[in-house]
Amino acid sequence: MKLARFQVNEQIFYGEVQGEQLQVLTGDPLHKYQVTDKFFALAEVKILAPVTPGKIICVGFNYSDHIQEIRKNPRITEEPIIFLAAPSALLHPGETIHLPYPEHETHYEAELVVVIGKEGRDIPPEKAREYIGGYTCGNDVSDRDIQKQDKQWTRAKSFHTFKPLGPFLVRDLAAAKLSIQSRVNGQLKQKSNTQLMIWSAEQLVVFISQVMTLYPGDVIYTGTPAGVGPLTAGDLCEIEVEGIGILRNPVC
Amino acid sequence: MKLARFQVNEQIFYGEVQGEQLQVLTGDPLHKYQVTDKFFALAEVKILAPVTPGKIICVGFNYSDHIQEIRKNPRITEEPIIFLAAPSALLHPGETIHLPYPEHETHYEAELVVVIGKEGRDIPPEKAREYIGGYTCGNDVSDRDIQKQDKQWTRAKSFHTFKPLGPFLVRDLAAAKLSIQSRVNGQLKQKSNTQLMIWSAEQLVVFISQVMTLYPGDVIYTGTPAGVGPLTAGDLCEIEVEGIGILRNPVC
Repeated sequence: MKLARFQVNEQIFYGEVQGEQLQVLTGDPLHKYQVTDKFFALAEVKILAPVTPGKIICVGFNYSDHIQEIRKNPRITEEPIIFLAAPSALLHPGETIHLPYPEHETHYEAELVVVIGKEGRDIPPEKAREYIGGYTCGNDVSDRDIQKQDKQWTRAKSFHTFKPLGPFLVRDLAAAKLSIQSRVNGQLKQKSNTQLMIWSAEQLVVFISQVMTLYPGDVIYTGTPAGVGPLTAGDLCEIEVEGIGILRNPVC
Repeated sequence: MKLARFQVNEQIFYGEVQGEQLQVLTGDPLHKYQVTDKFFALAEVKILAPVTPGKIICVGFNYSDHIQEIRKNPRITEEPIIFLAAPSALLHPGETIHLPYPEHETHYEAELVVVIGKEGRDIPPEKAREYIGGYTCGNDVSDRDIQKQDKQWTRAKSFHTFKPLGPFLVRDLAAAKLSIQSRVNGQLKQKSNTQLMIWSAEQLVVFISQVMTLYPGDVIYTGTPAGVGPLTAGDLCEIEVEGIGILRNPVC
């Protein structure tokens, strides 16, 4: 089921995507919900990031092709590398990525994003799927100059507008084999498949829950494939994950 | 003014510390509050971490003596190094630090903690003090084995119980020159002064607010001085900052 969070005038709704229409929901979109008989046209609403995360958890080095392109000594780490980005970096679909340091090299990173649906810690592997509320697209925008300077990645990836998320939340996606792409001004930049992920969505949920408690609405940016590159003012950046949709953000 | 958040039976209160008594408050303890005529004895309540932070922001390498002890090539970075720890790592005063990997080297780190009192971003230096709701003590417990393995510090510092915080929130503290200590089983381990901080509390608030929005209740662990060392099961760890109090946590 493909869901959207959206705004009409000052009100915020969740709805199921039905062709060019959104059928308004009541209840918990990450768990149990009911459809109503109220519809809006997709073209007439503002689509929002599907959740307002309490935590943005990011995973580094999760596609071997990206490890090859970024590391002098490419190696697959024994365990996933995780870090946190500030929730205030969240950006809605269609909104503008602001480059705070235009003289820096700032990169797009196409990512499959897991949305947590249920609170959990020390989640056993066989139950991981129950804790996943759905999937969406993310752009893990990264200031490479600051990333290199700090070594810690949080600041480079936490600036306001650096975490585009959306457009849709897909509840029942088979995430293990999905085409993933990024395009800048229509030109293909990244083209890979989630089957090349070193750690699967479920494995990441298990691993992260051994460290911290996961809450509904928390998101996991699961890492990016090869082909990362710079954004400059005036660009239009698109992230597309098969079965979810296209996350489009202009850059200024 | 020294405040405490505390629990009596199932109820949670804020109170002003008046000798051995707590005078219950109403209103916003980080901003404007009123005292009531209701008192509890300090000895009869459970003291809680003074806030439930939405974000735990940590600062690395903020005392030159600690940089000397931990880095092969000691250097002061041009800008503060920040990272985030998971809010689920929060631990109340008196509660037990659990070592998830007893075979690893896990260290205490005494820190002065800034509690944010007001939402802000791009805070100008001359207004930084307005955004500080108060100060408390923190222990930035760190699994050194994982810290070295991951290079990113978030996981090593985010395990449940790894962020003791408290016991009191001091609203009007002159934070620029305070003795700071840690003790394990009564033995002095760290002994320094906040005047040796490379970046002051105000400078950190300004810097961090240029990256992310700060919200009331967010906390900034401002870095630790020299003298860090291991904790083992059965230890009692104490962090003391002058003018605030002693944050005591047993280890298991």
